[in-house]
Amino acid sequence: MSEKRKRIIAVIGGGQPSPEEAKLAEEVGRQLAKQGATLVCGGLGGVMEAACRGASSEGGVTIGILPGDSPKTANPYVQIPIVTGVGYARNISVVKSAKAVIAIGGSYGTLSEIAHALQSGIPVIGLNTWSLSRNGQQDNSIIPAETATEAVNKALNLAGDR
Amino acid sequence: MSEKRKRIIAVIGGGQPSPEEAKLAEEVGRQLAKQGATLVCGGLGGVMEAACRGASSEGGVTIGILPGDSPKTANPYVQIPIVTGVGYARNISVVKSAKAVIAIGGSYGTLSEIAHALQSGIPVIGLNTWSLSRNGQQDNSIIPAETATEAVNKALNLAGDR
Amino acid sequence: MSEKRKRIIAVIGGGQPSPEEAKLAEEVGRQLAKQGATLVCGGLGGVMEAACRGASSEGGVTIGILPGDSPKTANPYVQIPIVTGVGYARNISVVKSAKAVIAIGGSYGTLSEIAHALQSGIPVIGLNTWSLSRNGQQDNSIIPAETATEAVNKALNLAGDR
Amino acid sequence: MSEKRKRIIAVIGGGQPSPEEAKLAEEVGRQLAKQGATLVCGGLGGVMEAACRGASSEGGVTIGILPGDSPKTANPYVQIPIVTGVGYARNISVVKSAKAVIAIGGSYGTLSEIAHALQSGIPVIGLNTWSLSRNGQQDNSIIPAETATEAVNKALNLAGDR
Repeated sequence: MSEKRKRIIAVIGGGQPSPEEAKLAEEVGRQLAKQGATLVCGGLGGVMEAACRGASSEGGVTIGILPGDSPKTANPYVQIPIVTGVGYARNISVVKSAKAVIAIGGSYGTLSEIAHALQSGIPVIGLNTWSLSRNGQQDNSIIPAETATEAVNKALNLAGDR
Repeated sequence: MSEKRKRIIAVIGGGQPSPEEAKLAEEVGRQLAKQGATLVCGGLGGVMEAACRGASSEGGVTIGILPGDSPKTANPYVQIPIVTGVGYARNISVVKSAKAVIAIGGSYGTLSEIAHALQSGIPVIGLNTWSLSRNGQQDNSIIPAETATEAVNKALNLAGDR
Repeated sequence: MSEKRKRIIAVIGGGQPSPEEAKLAEEVGRQLAKQGATLVCGGLGGVMEAACRGASSEGGVTIGILPGDSPKTANPYVQIPIVTGVGYARNISVVKSAKAVIAIGGSYGTLSEIAHALQSGIPVIGLNTWSLSRNGQQDNSIIPAETATEAVNKALNLAGDR
Repeated sequence: MSEKRKRIIAVIGGGQPSPEEAKLAEEVGRQLAKQGATLVCGGLGGVMEAACRGASSEGGVTIGILPGDSPKTANPYVQIPIVTGVGYARNISVVKSAKAVIAIGGSYGTLSEIAHALQSGIPVIGLNTWSLSRNGQQDNSIIPAETATEAVNKALNLAGDR
C-alpha cells in the first residue's frame, strides 16, 4: 500500500446545525488536520462546511462526496469534490471511505450514515447526536464524546486498519 | 396515471429474524396481499422471505430489490426481482418505492432504511424494531404497532399520495 | 424459484425518439406483452413511454425504474414504479433486471445501458441504434434486428437463464 | 471556491491492458502529475494502476473510486481511496468527478464510462479506444489522440469550468 495513503476520517452532520454544533464541527476539522488526518464529508453546507473550514485553516486535506451532478455544489473549503450523481446513496460512500466517523448533531440523513457505518463495522463517535435502542434495549454502538478534542482522539484511536 | 398503478408497501427487516419476527412478517405479507397491496422488499431471506411467502400465499404481487448482480439471489417467493448491483444503496430504492414502510425487528441495515424513509417523508410503522432519540429527546417518527393487523392497517391508512 | 417469477425484458431508448422509433417501441411493447413477457424500462417518456403504452394495450405488466425521487415522474403506463433516487445509476438496474435488452435509437444514456448490459453478459438486440468498434475493429455484440417482431423474437430466444 | 480546489482529470481503461496500453497509461499519469493535475480513476489494476504509478512517480495526487467495500482493493499507488460499495455505478462518479476524461483501450466498462461522460458533457479523449456510430452515422464525440502527450494536452485544454 502507498506510504502516501491518506488516513481518512469522516465528519457527518446536518446542513442546518445549531451555532454550537457548527463550532464543534469547525474545531473537529481543525484538530483532524493538525493530527494529519484527511477529512471526508458530504461536501455541502452546515456541519460539512464548518468542518472543512476548520481543516482548511490548518492546512488539512478536504474531500467532499457530493450527491448531485456538479462540483459547483461543494462548499468553498472542499479541495477534492467527488461528484457522484447518486443522491443520498452517496451517504454510503462518505462513511465507507473513512476509518472512523464523527457524527455531530444531524437529522435523518445523518442517521442513515450512522446506520451504514455501523453496518460496515466502522466506529462512530457521537457529539450531540442520535442515540438508539432496539426492541426496548439500549444500543451503545455510538461512542459518545463531550468535546471536539475527545471526539477526534477517539476517532483516531479507533480508526481501524480497514 | 395508470389505473393499474400498484399501491406498493415496503416490508423491511433483518436476514436472521427471531421466530416471532418471521411469523409477524409472514402475517404482514398475507394481510397486505389480502388488501390488494403490492409488497416490495430487499428480496433476500429472513423477514424479506417470510413476508414474500405470506403475500404469495394470498396471491399477492411481490417485488424484491436485490443488492447483488443476479436475480438468482432472490428468495423463491419474489415474483419481480429488480437487480441493482449497487449493494446497500438498494436500501434507498426499497423505501422510496413504497407509500409506507413496515419495519420488523432488524439490525443496522433496517435502521438505514428507516432513516432513508423518514428523510423522504415516507411513513414508517414499527413492529419490535428500533426506537430513536436525538440529542437526548425522544423521536417519535416511527409509528408503533403491536400486531401484524395493526401494522398493515396503519400502513395502508398512512400511505401517502406520493 | 417461484413459478410466478416473471420473464423480464428491458426496452431502452431515448426520451425524444423519432416518430418511427416511437412506433417501433410501441410495437415491441405490444409483442412482449402478447408473448407473456414483463417489460422493464427507465420509466420516463419517449421510447420508454411508447413501449409501456404498447405493453399495457395488450394487458402486459410494466415496470419503470426511475432516476428521481418520486413515482409521479413515471409515464402513465408504468404499473410498477421503482423509485431509486440514484440518477443515471438506475440505468444499470434497468438492464441487470432483464434477461435480454432491446435498444431502440437512443443517445448516450442508451449507450451507457448497452455497455452495462454487455459487461454483464446480457444479450442486446438493436433497432436503429448504436454500433461499436474498438481500436479499429468492429464489435458485433449488439445483435441487429430490422423489425419489432424480429427484435422481440430474438430477445425471447436469447433470454438467458440469469 | 477554494483556491486549493484540485483540477481533476480521469483516466479510464481496462483491468487487463496490452503492454502498449499500460505504457501509455503510465505516461499519461506522469504527464498529468507534471502539469499539476490530480488523477481520478476506478482505483483497481491495469490501466488504472499504471496511470496511478505514473502520477505517483512525479509526485502527483491520485484518487481511486472503488466499486467494492474495502480500501484494500485499491492499487498501491492510490493515495485517496473512495469506497463506494455501489459496484459499477461507481463508473459514473469517476467521470463526473473529472473536468475531462482520457480513455485508454478498455472494454465494456470503459465504454459505459465514455457514455456517462458524454451524457454529462464532459470531454473524452481517446487513445486506442472505442469509436461509435449511431444509426449508421459516425459519432465523433470521442476526441482522438495518438500519444500520451497529445492526450494530456487536449484534456487539459478542454477541461471545462464544471
